[in-house]
Amino acid sequence: MKKIAMLGSGFIGRFYADALHGNRSADKIVSIYSRRQESAQKFADDYGVPHVTTNMEESISNPDVEVVCIALPNNLHEEAVMLCCKHKKAVITTKPLGRNAAEAKRMLEAVEQAGIFNGYLEDLVYTPKFIKAMESVKNGALGRILWAKSRETHPGPHSEWFWNIELAGGGCILDLGCHCVEITRSYIGKDIKPVEVMCWADTQVKPIDAEDHAIGLIKYENGSIAQFEVSWTFRGGLDLRDEVMGTEGTIWINSFLRTGFEMFTTGKGADYVAEKAESNSGWLFPVGDEINELGYNHMFMDMFKSMEEGREPKETFYDGYVVNAILDAAYKSAKTKQWEPVQLDIWRGKEGLTKPSTLTDYDADHYLIKEEMTHFGAKKLILKNKTTGRIEERVLS
Amino acid sequence: MKKIAMLGSGFIGRFYADALHGNRSADKIVSIYSRRQESAQKFADDYGVPHVTTNMEESISNPDVEVVCIALPNNLHEEAVMLCCKHKKAVITTKPLGRNAAEAKRMLEAVEQAGIFNGYLEDLVYTPKFIKAMESVKNGALGRILWAKSRETHPGPHSEWFWNIELAGGGCILDLGCHCVEITRSYIGKDIKPVEVMCWADTQVKPIDAEDHAIGLIKYENGSIAQFEVSWTFRGGLDLRDEVMGTEGTIWINSFLRTGFEMFTTGKGADYVAEKAESNSGWLFPVGDEINELGYNHMFMDMFKSMEEGREPKETFYDGYVVNAILDAAYKSAKTKQWEPVQLDIWRGKEGLTKPSTLTDYDADHYLIKEEMTHFGAKKLILKNKTTGRIEERVLS
Amino acid sequence: MKKIAMLGSGFIGRFYADALHGNRSADKIVSIYSRRQESAQKFADDYGVPHVTTNMEESISNPDVEVVCIALPNNLHEEAVMLCCKHKKAVITTKPLGRNAAEAKRMLEAVEQAGIFNGYLEDLVYTPKFIKAMESVKNGALGRILWAKSRETHPGPHSEWFWNIELAGGGCILDLGCHCVEITRSYIGKDIKPVEVMCWADTQVKPIDAEDHAIGLIKYENGSIAQFEVSWTFRGGLDLRDEVMGTEGTIWINSFLRTGFEMFTTGKGADYVAEKAESNSGWLFPVGDEINELGYNHMFMDMFKSMEEGREPKETFYDGYVVNAILDAAYKSAKTKQWEPVQLDIWRGKEGLTKPSTLTDYDADHYLIKEEMTHFGAKKLILKNKTTGRIEERVLS
Amino acid sequence: MKKIAMLGSGFIGRFYADALHGNRSADKIVSIYSRRQESAQKFADDYGVPHVTTNMEESISNPDVEVVCIALPNNLHEEAVMLCCKHKKAVITTKPLGRNAAEAKRMLEAVEQAGIFNGYLEDLVYTPKFIKAMESVKNGALGRILWAKSRETHPGPHSEWFWNIELAGGGCILDLGCHCVEITRSYIGKDIKPVEVMCWADTQVKPIDAEDHAIGLIKYENGSIAQFEVSWTFRGGLDLRDEVMGTEGTIWINSFLRTGFEMFTTGKGADYVAEKAESNSGWLFPVGDEINELGYNHMFMDMFKSMEEGREPKETFYDGYVVNAILDAAYKSAKTKQWEPVQLDIWRGKEGLTKPSTLTDYDADHYLIKEEMTHFGAKKLILKNKTTGRIEERVLS
Repeated sequence: MKKIAMLGSGFIGRFYADALHGNRSADKIVSIYSRRQESAQKFADDYGVPHVTTNMEESISNPDVEVVCIALPNNLHEEAVMLCCKHKKAVITTKPLGRNAAEAKRMLEAVEQAGIFNGYLEDLVYTPKFIKAMESVKNGALGRILWAKSRETHPGPHSEWFWNIELAGGGCILDLGCHCVEITRSYIGKDIKPVEVMCWADTQVKPIDAEDHAIGLIKYENGSIAQFEVSWTFRGGLDLRDEVMGTEGTIWINSFLRTGFEMFTTGKGADYVAEKAESNSGWLFPVGDEINELGYNHMFMDMFKSMEEGREPKETFYDGYVVNAILDAAYKSAKTKQWEPVQLDIWRGKEGLTKPSTLTDYDADHYLIKEEMTHFGAKKLILKNKTTGRIEERVLS
Repeated sequence: MKKIAMLGSGFIGRFYADALHGNRSADKIVSIYSRRQESAQKFADDYGVPHVTTNMEESISNPDVEVVCIALPNNLHEEAVMLCCKHKKAVITTKPLGRNAAEAKRMLEAVEQAGIFNGYLEDLVYTPKFIKAMESVKNGALGRILWAKSRETHPGPHSEWFWNIELAGGGCILDLGCHCVEITRSYIGKDIKPVEVMCWADTQVKPIDAEDHAIGLIKYENGSIAQFEVSWTFRGGLDLRDEVMGTEGTIWINSFLRTGFEMFTTGKGADYVAEKAESNSGWLFPVGDEINELGYNHMFMDMFKSMEEGREPKETFYDGYVVNAILDAAYKSAKTKQWEPVQLDIWRGKEGLTKPSTLTDYDADHYLIKEEMTHFGAKKLILKNKTTGRIEERVLS
Repeated sequence: MKKIAMLGSGFIGRFYADALHGNRSADKIVSIYSRRQESAQKFADDYGVPHVTTNMEESISNPDVEVVCIALPNNLHEEAVMLCCKHKKAVITTKPLGRNAAEAKRMLEAVEQAGIFNGYLEDLVYTPKFIKAMESVKNGALGRILWAKSRETHPGPHSEWFWNIELAGGGCILDLGCHCVEITRSYIGKDIKPVEVMCWADTQVKPIDAEDHAIGLIKYENGSIAQFEVSWTFRGGLDLRDEVMGTEGTIWINSFLRTGFEMFTTGKGADYVAEKAESNSGWLFPVGDEINELGYNHMFMDMFKSMEEGREPKETFYDGYVVNAILDAAYKSAKTKQWEPVQLDIWRGKEGLTKPSTLTDYDADHYLIKEEMTHFGAKKLILKNKTTGRIEERVLS
Repeated sequence: MKKIAMLGSGFIGRFYADALHGNRSADKIVSIYSRRQESAQKFADDYGVPHVTTNMEESISNPDVEVVCIALPNNLHEEAVMLCCKHKKAVITTKPLGRNAAEAKRMLEAVEQAGIFNGYLEDLVYTPKFIKAMESVKNGALGRILWAKSRETHPGPHSEWFWNIELAGGGCILDLGCHCVEITRSYIGKDIKPVEVMCWADTQVKPIDAEDHAIGLIKYENGSIAQFEVSWTFRGGLDLRDEVMGTEGTIWINSFLRTGFEMFTTGKGADYVAEKAESNSGWLFPVGDEINELGYNHMFMDMFKSMEEGREPKETFYDGYVVNAILDAAYKSAKTKQWEPVQLDIWRGKEGLTKPSTLTDYDADHYLIKEEMTHFGAKKLILKNKTTGRIEERVLS
């Protein structure tokens, strides 16, 4: 039962509003700030918001407001956060936290000094599929995590500021990679230190200064490896997939393009064609409930419940800072073509981990390499002699 | 912001409670009735319900209660509905409405005479996928609907009363077929009259009196055909799929077993194995957010919003009655091995429809049977002479 | 190493030729017969066939010819078969064998009297997926088979004669249902007697005399049920799926539209657009190796190897006859709206089977209805008292 | 119609033999060489091979032999190839060609100097799905290729020598990466020069000296990027997937674990359990026709047809050499943690390509960044001013 100021009336602000006012919610947006009066007013009309302003501080300091939700372009996050600190309002911020780790660190230190609630709106670690997958991983269903990959690619963002490297702070690495980094970091363990990053990035298609395609690897202290694949040049929709590999299992998640809903249409149904003229025929793959599938419901629930219960939410500014630090290393690596260390002035997880041994005893003299069933039902072993290093096969009847 | 009495503390009652209290809901269960004190008390503890009783009328008549939610075995629906009429409380009832159309009709007439709000809790026409598919169908993306199939099969229900034909009123036709009938009826059009039903049913596996497997066809007045496939003997989980075919397209929905979440585990993760010992290894297909995927959120939202707005919900007792009438015809057909007419004493949709003509003019002298592209890029036509009936091919360069 | 006369140079004849001459085959088409000289000549040129004729008997009686492959419209099968009998040539015939059981029976009796090798070219029980699935079924992986469904739907056949009920003998039931019937019959057991058929059929879209959509159920003597779904009005491609349900498992096969090959294209690649202009954009689902996936390779291998080894192939004219008899009952049922008995003057399988009992003992006093794991890791049983019929739950810790 | 000497009677030799003798093949294995007499004899018995020997040269020089097929451990390829050169026999060799580029180069130079036919048995660019995908790529359906990924992971190879770094020459990079490199290189264009490689590799699970998990990126001269993901530690079966991204489309291929065949079994069918005891229950995903799906049929067809027609096959020793050179760079990169140049002493493709410009004119003053349809049916453009660099949105009604 929270009263919210929404900063930003664009694409993401409206997505958030749909989630916040959705289902049978008791929460309410009570103030809307936008840089453009017309946009603010339209938002207010659509969502029944009483207070409308083009002055950011006026929205934040509004006495009705308990929580400030930042849904602004990346270059405005820091200013908004600082005003929340000044007015001691709980603050939740869209991703990425900053355009870089320096910005993120300043925001992190400010909210902690101000003692205000801070939440990082990384929705994709709140999707229902992610939450259930994470439980299985924690329960040991996958054994030790070896590799986690997250892929987010689509044909490019909707608003102009994303394409401006100054306002956005980067290209698809910052826009999409922030999701992938936090997803894979979660699977590997948020208390495991990210050590170094290798990244390839290029501007392959778009006439822009930032990268429109990138692939990166992140090495963690315990030897686990994370991978991100991001692009603004993918054709075919929004491709949102995660994969995790452990010693005892694997998880594959498809969050958008293949979720059990398939439709073919010739496009001859007249009304339908009129409504959206581009991809209106052939095989289409809609998502049933985008808001829920993208994690917005569970994200805001965690944010508001933890606020009410006086605890930290799953994702805080600290997490946003760690993500920015990893992405900084990725950008540096894309330039230097080296593995670049992750610069973490603030680190609150484990330290000094080492890679687990890969030696598995079979008996006193042998390590076990592999065991499998033969066609004729016997067990076949591949063993390594501890002394000689010799590899041998053995078939047990 | 509704205050609810929950009648029934079993499997479905708890599912409903999870939905009602889920996310950031302002609605609240204020009274719980169960036949067994212990079960009622456990429910009250788990969901923070202040009023606990083993007397049904006490729960319904509780002055705090605005809405009564019936989550009881089928044989108790009528009694509960009549008490709601007596106390003029809004009532929403789990599926099926009655054990047969006679029961359903009495309930329908009673709530309408009492002038109380009545909702039929057919969750599967509220799933996010169904809602989006239905929009496409209404927009004409599939053209004229020719066929709609719904399949629900699993290894059998959890509670003992389902297996007792007296309490349940039937087997898997009543338990699962009620979903399939309303899903397919919705695609074809709820104002189109179901005319006759052919059904095969058998008790193939279980030592019970009711059917554990059935397949049925429902003919509608406009020539559309609906199909249901239901079973309590399926191995492999909960199979929940719909298919719709129209003149301009098709829709395939998989609501449970293939939704973009795939996990393999050897089952060696110790904790995980301990927790659920049966299907703990191999390829598993969890659903991210069962409550939402099964439609509970959108169903209760419709019920409560329509109550607040003084309009009818999408699903009322009238719909429950129509479904029961169709299922009665199915049961009769399974015995007589005939197409049995659907007996609808109350019908509020269209009357007197006929099947659309299948003749499509190509030119003054020919009907068009088919047009397709040849390998070499020309258009090939198959035509029928209107006078002679002769069928001919024509290739247009 | 067989020398073949191909009768028919159309769509299916060319498909067969691709299979017969494919890979590193030693077999060879040595004679081609077509009703039209031009078509015969083109076929001969494309496949390097030395003997070209528009006289059917000339092709069959050609001394080089060892095997006659009939790839003609349905109304010409009988004539061709009789000529093979006359000239004592091994004969293999495309599906369906006859336009009805009477035709099929005459052909069956003729080839057996003539003592010639006869094969029924039902390719879909030779697909690699079917063959592997069938092995699993035979090994007991699915337990007792309860239900088998086969679905084949597409936007209608390519050649004009299919649309002429006189030449074809029927509509999609005969054209596509013959596949579905033999697939499902194989899963249930080809020695199990089909007893009766219920079929719905309609002409929903096409301006033709035959049916363009049908659904049928076939009851077998052992209580198993088969189902076919066929249509010439499906939009979206060739939908070819089978499902089998047994007491211990289930199989789902998708043979065409979802086989692990997915492509999205905007259609802007100029050459590509030029080549096939209809479905050249959006998500497309090609099949890698159509010939192999549709079973042609394994079908001809079985035919020729069994010829060489002096044994019967998996599919003979007898099977074609049984299929025709089942389809006759389907056509009759579609008219009478009754379950119609399958008229089998010739039956070589088991007789007098009864449905297995559904009673499973739990202990001396109870039957077992269901056992499942509870959330808290205990085993829950649903039992039926043998004497009282009472159903009860029991939880074993 | 070829007479073949098979060198090696192990897993891959038998796979090859199944393909070579499969379907209605006229080709024949006439000599089998194995290091162990018992294994050679068993192979000869199973495949009806007249000549059996444990002397490699005896098999190669056998006058009946036209083609030598090398199916030996990696460390024996060079010796076998040199004997083929000596005896002037056509030679086809399993993958990888050498343990490194030096070996591969010596083999390439030897066969060319000897003037003998040489084929590189990279089966995965002969899978039916790959062949069809490649056609689409060549036809321009995907536009300019930006990225191609191939993934092959499984729980580790069957024979002991793979695990011995001396005999195998490496771990999963060499064993599986050779496939991935040639697949992705084909999509990008085999005449495009691979420039440099970045690779992460680790021994995460197995007690061996070689890597059991690796991820690599390969940059091509035209700016395209290839990616491989390989592992011997994957749980869940054989994961074999490719993805290609172009400016106009995308392709996703799943060659093994999801090909439209799904089976659930409780594993209670007694015979079935006995046969393969490990993964005999739950959801299983068999492949219909492994031999064909893995490309063996089309590979040997290309090899033998090109031999007969006196042309080069699609894959020659030259291709094997290029693959080895790329993998050498990958191994080096895994150690140096740098992008390592691909050392190609022999290069027969294009030289001096540059990355295509990313500038797309919209009008005289603007570049086009993106165009999309708005919700209300208008076209929205994102443009970049050529002079000022300013990015702007424009909505066309």
